Amino acid sequence: MPKPPNRDERPEIPPGTLDLLILRSITREPQHGYAIARTIKEQSGATLLVEEGSLYPALHRLVRLKHVTAEWGTSENNRKARFYRITPAGRKRLAADADLWRRVSSAVTAVLDGADLRPGEGRTACSA
Amino acid sequence: MPKPPNRDERPEIPPGTLDLLILRSITREPQHGYAIARTIKEQSGATLLVEEGSLYPALHRLVRLKHVTAEWGTSENNRKARFYRITPAGRKRLAADADLWRRVSSAVTAVLDGADLRPGEGRTACSA
Repeated sequence: MPKPPNRDERPEIPPGTLDLLILRSITREPQHGYAIARTIKEQSGATLLVEEGSLYPALHRLVRLKHVTAEWGTSENNRKARFYRITPAGRKRLAADADLWRRVSSAVTAVLDGADLRPGEGRTACSA
Repeated sequence: MPKPPNRDERPEIPPGTLDLLILRSITREPQHGYAIARTIKEQSGATLLVEEGSLYPALHRLVRLKHVTAEWGTSENNRKARFYRITPAGRKRLAADADLWRRVSSAVTAVLDGADLRPGEGRTACSA
């Protein structure tokens, strides 16, 4: 049997980006927790799977930070559920953090793609 | 005075990607620590600045994991320095982690860009 895949099978959501994904999922309308996880899953082409054990602590933290408010409502299945709504402070943070994410992730990708770094040329020293 | 910029001024290297950046910096030839940090800075357009307090612990960890070996050599300034060389296991890890990074970072960006999520349409409920 092949070795069981580990990280490659279900990539972890990069630390620090979960809040961003959650905030992004509720920019249009308040959603309950399950719908937030579903949105992230769908929008990411099923690459990013948020588990309840990460989602609810993150939501509670966002509520404490006043980036999100929570209110009771009725889900599409007629169940009582807490709906999370982004606040103006949450929108501000989302805008700043999304910019930061784009900058940093492009920079990481640039290093990985680094033309000067391509292997295959042997051990020639870098000339200035 | 405006509020001092914090995170936006000097973005943190995303946790988990530092090893990847280091390994990538030494794929062509062994480098000493300072040169690794310089490569990451240059290749990232000066966006990613690795501090010594992060770099050396990461290098030691990579040595322990046998993804990197260290050997004494002479730097371009004629100083003794430890040069870090990527091992075959390190190359394997780099290939796997770089793929994973591309998948995950694209997925995060896809959620942030999510067409279905764009605000500005008011509170219309999602119809199936």
